[in-house]
Amino acid sequence: MANTDFLNNATFLKKTAIVGFPIVALTEQLNKASGKHGKYVHWGATTQDIMDTALILQLKETLKCIEEELEKIIKALITLTRKHRNTIMVGRSQMQHGLPITFGFKSALWLFPILEHIEQLRVLQKNSLYVQFGGAIGTLASLKTEGVKVRKALAKELELNEPKISWHSSREVLIEIMHRITAISGTLGKIGKDISLLSQTEIGEVQEQRIDGRGISSTMPQKRNPISAQALLISARNTTNYMNILYQALLNDHERGTSIWQSEWLAIPNLLIHAAGGIGIASDLLKHLEVYPEKMKENLMKTNGFIMAEAVMMQLAMKIGKQEAHDLIHNLIEQAQKENKTFKEVLEQNQITKQYSKKEIDSWLDPQNYLGETKNMIDAVEQKAKKLTS
Amino acid sequence: MANTDFLNNATFLKKTAIVGFPIVALTEQLNKASGKHGKYVHWGATTQDIMDTALILQLKETLKCIEEELEKIIKALITLTRKHRNTIMVGRSQMQHGLPITFGFKSALWLFPILEHIEQLRVLQKNSLYVQFGGAIGTLASLKTEGVKVRKALAKELELNEPKISWHSSREVLIEIMHRITAISGTLGKIGKDISLLSQTEIGEVQEQRIDGRGISSTMPQKRNPISAQALLISARNTTNYMNILYQALLNDHERGTSIWQSEWLAIPNLLIHAAGGIGIASDLLKHLEVYPEKMKENLMKTNGFIMAEAVMMQLAMKIGKQEAHDLIHNLIEQAQKENKTFKEVLEQNQITKQYSKKEIDSWLDPQNYLGETKNMIDAVEQKAKKLTS
Amino acid sequence: MANTDFLNNATFLKKTAIVGFPIVALTEQLNKASGKHGKYVHWGATTQDIMDTALILQLKETLKCIEEELEKIIKALITLTRKHRNTIMVGRSQMQHGLPITFGFKSALWLFPILEHIEQLRVLQKNSLYVQFGGAIGTLASLKTEGVKVRKALAKELELNEPKISWHSSREVLIEIMHRITAISGTLGKIGKDISLLSQTEIGEVQEQRIDGRGISSTMPQKRNPISAQALLISARNTTNYMNILYQALLNDHERGTSIWQSEWLAIPNLLIHAAGGIGIASDLLKHLEVYPEKMKENLMKTNGFIMAEAVMMQLAMKIGKQEAHDLIHNLIEQAQKENKTFKEVLEQNQITKQYSKKEIDSWLDPQNYLGETKNMIDAVEQKAKKLTS
Amino acid sequence: MANTDFLNNATFLKKTAIVGFPIVALTEQLNKASGKHGKYVHWGATTQDIMDTALILQLKETLKCIEEELEKIIKALITLTRKHRNTIMVGRSQMQHGLPITFGFKSALWLFPILEHIEQLRVLQKNSLYVQFGGAIGTLASLKTEGVKVRKALAKELELNEPKISWHSSREVLIEIMHRITAISGTLGKIGKDISLLSQTEIGEVQEQRIDGRGISSTMPQKRNPISAQALLISARNTTNYMNILYQALLNDHERGTSIWQSEWLAIPNLLIHAAGGIGIASDLLKHLEVYPEKMKENLMKTNGFIMAEAVMMQLAMKIGKQEAHDLIHNLIEQAQKENKTFKEVLEQNQITKQYSKKEIDSWLDPQNYLGETKNMIDAVEQKAKKLTS
Repeated sequence: MANTDFLNNATFLKKTAIVGFPIVALTEQLNKASGKHGKYVHWGATTQDIMDTALILQLKETLKCIEEELEKIIKALITLTRKHRNTIMVGRSQMQHGLPITFGFKSALWLFPILEHIEQLRVLQKNSLYVQFGGAIGTLASLKTEGVKVRKALAKELELNEPKISWHSSREVLIEIMHRITAISGTLGKIGKDISLLSQTEIGEVQEQRIDGRGISSTMPQKRNPISAQALLISARNTTNYMNILYQALLNDHERGTSIWQSEWLAIPNLLIHAAGGIGIASDLLKHLEVYPEKMKENLMKTNGFIMAEAVMMQLAMKIGKQEAHDLIHNLIEQAQKENKTFKEVLEQNQITKQYSKKEIDSWLDPQNYLGETKNMIDAVEQKAKKLTS
Repeated sequence: MANTDFLNNATFLKKTAIVGFPIVALTEQLNKASGKHGKYVHWGATTQDIMDTALILQLKETLKCIEEELEKIIKALITLTRKHRNTIMVGRSQMQHGLPITFGFKSALWLFPILEHIEQLRVLQKNSLYVQFGGAIGTLASLKTEGVKVRKALAKELELNEPKISWHSSREVLIEIMHRITAISGTLGKIGKDISLLSQTEIGEVQEQRIDGRGISSTMPQKRNPISAQALLISARNTTNYMNILYQALLNDHERGTSIWQSEWLAIPNLLIHAAGGIGIASDLLKHLEVYPEKMKENLMKTNGFIMAEAVMMQLAMKIGKQEAHDLIHNLIEQAQKENKTFKEVLEQNQITKQYSKKEIDSWLDPQNYLGETKNMIDAVEQKAKKLTS
Repeated sequence: MANTDFLNNATFLKKTAIVGFPIVALTEQLNKASGKHGKYVHWGATTQDIMDTALILQLKETLKCIEEELEKIIKALITLTRKHRNTIMVGRSQMQHGLPITFGFKSALWLFPILEHIEQLRVLQKNSLYVQFGGAIGTLASLKTEGVKVRKALAKELELNEPKISWHSSREVLIEIMHRITAISGTLGKIGKDISLLSQTEIGEVQEQRIDGRGISSTMPQKRNPISAQALLISARNTTNYMNILYQALLNDHERGTSIWQSEWLAIPNLLIHAAGGIGIASDLLKHLEVYPEKMKENLMKTNGFIMAEAVMMQLAMKIGKQEAHDLIHNLIEQAQKENKTFKEVLEQNQITKQYSKKEIDSWLDPQNYLGETKNMIDAVEQKAKKLTS
Repeated sequence: MANTDFLNNATFLKKTAIVGFPIVALTEQLNKASGKHGKYVHWGATTQDIMDTALILQLKETLKCIEEELEKIIKALITLTRKHRNTIMVGRSQMQHGLPITFGFKSALWLFPILEHIEQLRVLQKNSLYVQFGGAIGTLASLKTEGVKVRKALAKELELNEPKISWHSSREVLIEIMHRITAISGTLGKIGKDISLLSQTEIGEVQEQRIDGRGISSTMPQKRNPISAQALLISARNTTNYMNILYQALLNDHERGTSIWQSEWLAIPNLLIHAAGGIGIASDLLKHLEVYPEKMKENLMKTNGFIMAEAVMMQLAMKIGKQEAHDLIHNLIEQAQKENKTFKEVLEQNQITKQYSKKEIDSWLDPQNYLGETKNMIDAVEQKAKKLTS
């Protein structure tokens, strides 16, 4: 942390309000406080050099924190995936029952994009943290022939990369970092959305960890709200709009833009606040997520076997073609709903399907037999995950 | 191009309106048209498999086009940078005269971020073009034990990458591609903004290529509007908002989202239309840009030497400290403006500065002597540019 | 519809590509086609006069259509609200069971903001549809002293309002109209979200009208997706981003902006396409919505009475204070869940609550007795609705 | 200001972190601090009732402040418009010289949309400030038959309007207010943009008030940046993105949404911070704006008369038709530029135009004679402005 004892705050604020920017007010006081070295204060640098470099140093810390959180999230998801590799549940499409999946497959779907994020994040940490040092207009003219030499030394001192050219008016450096953070928030937001939906009273397949008082309501004593899942969603919903501000802020004019750079001043911290609100609690949420396999099974059975419609259709498709099989099964299900029968009952009665043995029909209706490539896909994701966190 | 002769369009549209999605209407007709093979139509695939894979194939073409355009843009900028390595002009900050730069330095600033884009674009083309093939809910269940095998064959056939797991509900694949395109549009937008500003009647340092009729007005016969530069700006201003839609569309629910995927249907084509509006004409704009070094020089001289204020200040700073020098020069310039004198005149009269010889003061006021590290930075950028386009 | 027979399309497109704008190419041909009157073509007007006025005429039609649709939506919601004034269901907070409400209360909540929209829409139709006619720079100089007179005649001819001053560079006129349409889409989107959620397989309290083939899946024969509800959501999610473009497009420079106006060209039609996607089907969705009161009751009972927790708490609160009552009930429910008991059972056993008679406790647990002011609020909304659509 | 002496902050923060929301932690302590009345604390209300009503009370203050600022801005613009009713300057289109206007016409263009804003703002203040009081799920059930009565009394006590129905999940109330503030920021942003552009070193037609130290640079002693104009632009550029968040936040689910309401918590204050950054300084900027009529005249003359091209064209159009006149003048100007002649010179030499007398040509070239309806439009705007601020 910087030592700011030298600063007379009232004078600083007053001068800043007049100038419209803080740095003149700061350097005046720093100058006085520095005795005989004072005359070299802010030598060669300009306001934005100081602010950009400070921002990059902060982002360096930020990316380190995010990397650590992602590692924890990945580990929590590996554990969840392994544990529920065989936990059968409803796969949902447009919030309707689709086909059976496993909870491990769902969590592997959550995990996969995070693996790509951590890879990209590490590349960013290595390549994209550039010092800013260009002087008033980016040319380093005030340092005569020493400009690039001083910049190199500064980069070394601060352990930052040296850019090929000043980036005062080329904010792509920030765009790449903030895009990554926004996209990570989006990925976690999808997890938060799924958990919120699975926590609905009528579905009840998962719940956030029971902590006394967590998620209670001020009025409804029975409530236990999915607080952390919502935090992930809020984070995702908000970061994107700050990102929009930042994309727009690429449109700097000339060698230092008019009213553009300032857009970053609230957008970047706010984006990070929102991102932190999700990234910072995701691993805890996932690590302690309460999963209810019995409830998952109960929901799977709720439609009297209709969730196995595609499975049965594909069996028949081999004989009568996919389209015909689709229409047949669609009609059978309509009939079953009207007559309040189970899928099994109509299958055993229909002229075409009753040609199959009951055993055969039973096997078609067993979700265990219709999990497809879930395990192979889980394995592929897990393998990559382990490689990235070892 | 696909052969769609088999399609009865009226029937197709009618059915699509009923279902609410096009694919059922399509497969019904394709089925009939396919004779004995008809029964295998749409076997194992789901609507989104077809649409996502088609989208990726289109994006593959798109990225190829963009890469080619970027290469042309890079070449045009290398030429411009070389040609104007020594063309002195005003460097502007907040649209005010700042310090002298060269036009080659400005164009190198334009060039640098494009180099990072083309590098990233090539990585994307190699790693991120994934086939989509997961069936109804991503498990490939309908293909029994052949799912992954078929997916591999499909990927090979289409020359796309194979994903570790289905990405129906994980749209990060698209986010990475569209982010790159949005960021490229932003980078070009900055160029468009600079050219628009430099083309102002009062500034007149550059103009778009004179083509008979280009940029004329329907009412004002003297007009020649900067049409292409504006196209770059429009492109940049609009792509970002579509990107915002796409970030939001990460928030799929469950294994296939509710009303989320559909957001991509207009957002992606519109983003690409806007991006193309900029990317497609940028190289032409830059290749044929008319640059007026005389006008640049004239503008540089417009403030009676005040643009050299920092240069003079840094000379004095070595003696009296930076803060004191800043205040001295600031006051001298205020005085000159009031008394309608040139910078040189007040310098030759002031008690402190008149201690220096006229020759010395002349040399301080020569923009040639205050270009800092522009050449070294230009060289660094050019070197990288050549490596990337060889 | 305009007669465009005179137009040679190939020539028109070629010229437009050169100029960069369409109007010069158009007026050239219109000029030739107009014989002796040709020399007056485009007299006094500028491109944007033509395009803006045409846009306002289109928006006039658009607002009329939207008003008609809103009236139909309001009527459908009045019917729904009346019919289900007493249909008890779960009121949900954070997707958890909260308190009982009626479906009529829910639909009155949907209805209320639409009433404010239609009022505002009618004000807009009356006051905000301005002709644009200012010539090249807004001054009407080319018509000498006849400018305002001609503008008045034009406004009268087109049945549009006359502005106090040209609005070429003041796009607030459009902002007000597009804000209203965006906000309407948002309001309908909330309805679409509720219907999607209520249609979930596990909840099943409503369904969209059963139309043969509507919402079917290409792979899963049992599916019947909530297609129209999703359309409302998609509409809402997308219009806002176009609105963002339009707000940004307020920042015109000078008397006719640089690359700003063009942002409206795709944003306005796209916003309207998305808006139409929701507004155009909402009344049908609501008119034919299938509501299942039995299922609503079943879900209400699912938590063994816990949904009545606040009702019981408020009874006790009168004796022991709200905070104490809250904590007592919270603990009783935790206990009931652990011991797998109903709310009634624990209430009848607890030391404090067992002091009340079973009849009393039964009456606390009856959702009918805890509907609060739902009817009064419904009445207030209905009354306003009827006044606005009579 | 509320008395919060009773609050143990540490306990409050700890409890809030556990619960995930602040209100339970607050009411617990308020309860204890309220002695025998404690048991009635938070009776019938829910968290959102408290927070929404507090927000509306804050917005009431906010709208009052904004109205006062708008009145000051309107007065400053009336003064500016009157003073510069006859100050001739360049009207610009796409940043190119177009036709002559007056600075009073420009400032009347700035003024007009503000008049519509203040009208709408006053309507909002009167009609849209609703109390929120609905209890846990909006039904006011906990107050039995007294709900609406208590709500009425509360509204009266707080001098707010009473809604027809609870608006917990219908955020249109906020949308209307925040839209107005966003649109106002946009309107002021356009003014900021114009002032920034007019302040460019090469144009120099206006400058912000000279205040010692205002807008100085830390490195370039000659700089005097347009600080306040930029603040207006920054404000406009940022508010819109927060507005986008708020539109999205219309999509509440059910009777209290999941992770939606929370989006407002940072978006509304941030939107207001950004809006204040512009609205709060605009009247000062305009009141003290330094306008340089001499410089305006100088710039007008910069193109050797070409800015009068349309004026001359319209004279000829009456004889030879508009299209022919357009092409003739366009060619004459091209010729003049090549031959480095003034517009007057080529007009006096051309076969067609030399038929007119020099006096006639001179009168065509006098900007005074081509100001069209500027005065009538100024008058119309001024008249409305005075009516709204009297």
